[in-house]
Amino acid sequence: MSNNNNGEPEGYRGVLRERLIKDKIRTWSKVVIKKGDAEYEGLLLPRSQHTDDNYVTLKVDTGYNLGVLIDEEATIKEIGFHKGNYQLPHIDVKFKKDLPNVTLLGTGGTVASRLDYRTGAVLPAFTPDELFSAVPELISTVNLTPKTLYQILSENFRPEYWVKTAEAIAKEIESGADGIIIGHGTDTMCVTGCALSFFLRNLPVPVVLVGSQRSSDRPSSDGPRNILYAAKLSGYENFGEVVIAMHGTPSDSYNLIHRATRCRKMHSARRDTFRTLSDIPLGKIDDTGVTWFKDDVSPRKPREDFHLDTKIDSRVGMLYFYPGMNPDMLNAMVDLGYHGVVMIGTGLAHVGTDIYPALERCQEEEIPVVMVVEPLFGFAQLRVYETGRDMLARGVIEGENMLPSAAYTKLSWALGHTRNIDEVRDIMLTNVAGEITTREGPRGYLVLQGVEPGIDKMMKNL
Amino acid sequence: MSNNNNGEPEGYRGVLRERLIKDKIRTWSKVVIKKGDAEYEGLLLPRSQHTDDNYVTLKVDTGYNLGVLIDEEATIKEIGFHKGNYQLPHIDVKFKKDLPNVTLLGTGGTVASRLDYRTGAVLPAFTPDELFSAVPELISTVNLTPKTLYQILSENFRPEYWVKTAEAIAKEIESGADGIIIGHGTDTMCVTGCALSFFLRNLPVPVVLVGSQRSSDRPSSDGPRNILYAAKLSGYENFGEVVIAMHGTPSDSYNLIHRATRCRKMHSARRDTFRTLSDIPLGKIDDTGVTWFKDDVSPRKPREDFHLDTKIDSRVGMLYFYPGMNPDMLNAMVDLGYHGVVMIGTGLAHVGTDIYPALERCQEEEIPVVMVVEPLFGFAQLRVYETGRDMLARGVIEGENMLPSAAYTKLSWALGHTRNIDEVRDIMLTNVAGEITTREGPRGYLVLQGVEPGIDKMMKNL
Repeated sequence: MSNNNNGEPEGYRGVLRERLIKDKIRTWSKVVIKKGDAEYEGLLLPRSQHTDDNYVTLKVDTGYNLGVLIDEEATIKEIGFHKGNYQLPHIDVKFKKDLPNVTLLGTGGTVASRLDYRTGAVLPAFTPDELFSAVPELISTVNLTPKTLYQILSENFRPEYWVKTAEAIAKEIESGADGIIIGHGTDTMCVTGCALSFFLRNLPVPVVLVGSQRSSDRPSSDGPRNILYAAKLSGYENFGEVVIAMHGTPSDSYNLIHRATRCRKMHSARRDTFRTLSDIPLGKIDDTGVTWFKDDVSPRKPREDFHLDTKIDSRVGMLYFYPGMNPDMLNAMVDLGYHGVVMIGTGLAHVGTDIYPALERCQEEEIPVVMVVEPLFGFAQLRVYETGRDMLARGVIEGENMLPSAAYTKLSWALGHTRNIDEVRDIMLTNVAGEITTREGPRGYLVLQGVEPGIDKMMKNL
Repeated sequence: MSNNNNGEPEGYRGVLRERLIKDKIRTWSKVVIKKGDAEYEGLLLPRSQHTDDNYVTLKVDTGYNLGVLIDEEATIKEIGFHKGNYQLPHIDVKFKKDLPNVTLLGTGGTVASRLDYRTGAVLPAFTPDELFSAVPELISTVNLTPKTLYQILSENFRPEYWVKTAEAIAKEIESGADGIIIGHGTDTMCVTGCALSFFLRNLPVPVVLVGSQRSSDRPSSDGPRNILYAAKLSGYENFGEVVIAMHGTPSDSYNLIHRATRCRKMHSARRDTFRTLSDIPLGKIDDTGVTWFKDDVSPRKPREDFHLDTKIDSRVGMLYFYPGMNPDMLNAMVDLGYHGVVMIGTGLAHVGTDIYPALERCQEEEIPVVMVVEPLFGFAQLRVYETGRDMLARGVIEGENMLPSAAYTKLSWALGHTRNIDEVRDIMLTNVAGEITTREGPRGYLVLQGVEPGIDKMMKNL
């Protein structure tokens, strides 16, 4: 970050911009803001484009960025100005041999100080200085090596990047890393997490996927804390799985640790968007440490047992069934040369009888069709009803209780190993990385905030 | 139900069948079952095909059917046998002019006594006698007229049936019905509910969709209670909306009342499968009555304002985006002559840049593409990021916070009125039946049973 502006309130807009100009408050100046009894002092940072118009961003002495709402009541005053180029203070990070070595692989570019929810990037890629400036506790927690793999928008994170990311992780593990953090846009984090879960066999270290639902120049950014928790998890905990560790609530009370294969993004914007479906999360982490809820977490495996298995076939597609669906869509997939299809069916994973002729074509051409359930919770069960058995007779594979993201990545992976339909079925029906649970108890089903438990009492409090 | 068997334990299978034969227990005989201190007496009913192998079904004196697990400990003894044809006792139901008139339209055949979760049908269609025998309280609650429209499996409930169902409802309303109940398979109940919400303008009576997650010959059938609650709701309450009223919890504590356009089936098997997303339910009903949670429920409209608007275009499809998706699927939909597409996009409703050329084709050919969010909760917001604006420049329509079922039925309905893309956009962005909410507060987001609130305490109790 360097100061090469002309004293303009860089990046600010609207009424707030006019006020800053009128009061002669420049970005990169030291300011004091008073609001009632509260007083904030810090460096007024320029703002990037996607921000709330009425907040200023201060870099305070602790190194954190702080967002402050400038309302009618607030006063803001310039008390100093950095001339020339402003530089983040250089932090001399020494390798400490008693700390674990953790590698942070950024797949979307910037992580932490300007971690963005979709991309990991709003501003240019982070430097170690920026990272440690944003999350000072990192220095005493682990020996952290941040590396930028590439800058991919979340929705463009295609199968080739799953493979490249897995290869980069393997390289770090072979170089002796004690833990791996992957910075990833949140929209498709679960899909990449599922793919990595199948690719990385016998993991000797934790792999923690992390991102942010708020870009860091907003006052409520969750990036820095997520990185710190991910460092603690990957550096110190004894598990050899791919997990997602993100906010459990809208506040900063704790992060939940989700097995990637059972995790889903459930809200387009909330910080606590990630949920483990059909089970409880593996555990939680807060400032007091880690609490494991489940006792089936796989421990770190011996390093010599680790291997990569990234063979995939990317001619796999997903199709969402709906009442009235015409078989032409599935027929088109056969015509277009798809090698496998994950189909999301209603209820226990049914499709309408209209679709049967297309299922028969898939069967004839040995294209596996894996059925998963639209409700997201619960199992595909095609043996209960006659029409389900009709579907099984047409060769479909019951996807057990795999989430669509798990079934899609797993079918790509299975078809990378074999096109034999019976072998594909065997792979799909075998639990490889926690993507299939043996049963679903009441734990992990959803209740609605403000409805359960104590429905009447909670309604009053809303 | 008539007894024309040969004394065989009709419908029973496996070990239980062998035991009944050995002990000479016939269906239609009166039996006594003892299990520890418990004693059950009733008529042994034949079983339909899809049942738990180890249960017998008894019709007890109250008229209810009861499922009893026959385990090692249980004894079963025949104490009488009906000779000739068994008839359900005829119940002479008199029209009572002080009770509201409610019509129950069965779309899947049997409702109530043998309500099945997918079809509304396991055994042949109900008769009024069977219905009142299964739910005796109905007689004193409303003047109920049950009618069978047709027998459609849930997954085959195509747009033409949405229209026929709406027409049947209109006919009943014009004949003076005070309330309407629709018996419907649960898998696609929300889709039909959405379609009806758009078709039935200015509803003068409640329309309550109801089904069962358990077929009635299983001990935990929820059909009878759901019908009774639906009768109370549609007969007595002052609302003119299409709602789904189904179990709120796995027990029988209460049913939740969901606005159809905001409701989704969230579990393939649980009784409390229906959830209002991004809002709280409209209310609840239990044995003590109805509690409304929300105050924006539309009241009954004047009968003269009611009209049907069932113009639809069924060349509409849905497409589920996933990372790595090839544009060939969307191109195929253009080639196949689709008139509109609902696309489920990641996060704020994005698709990968690979898809852009296909979006451009849709734009050129004036095929509306409506974007909804994969997370299910939250809004499509394509103005936040550059790539979202790139999508808007290619003509896509932001689907606000419509659920896929609402967007799909609404786009079919919009295209039934106009192919003009600007008019379609206007219709899609206008809230017609509660399918778009103006904002999403914290109410209605999901928390996970056993995790929130009081995470540690509840973990201990799991």
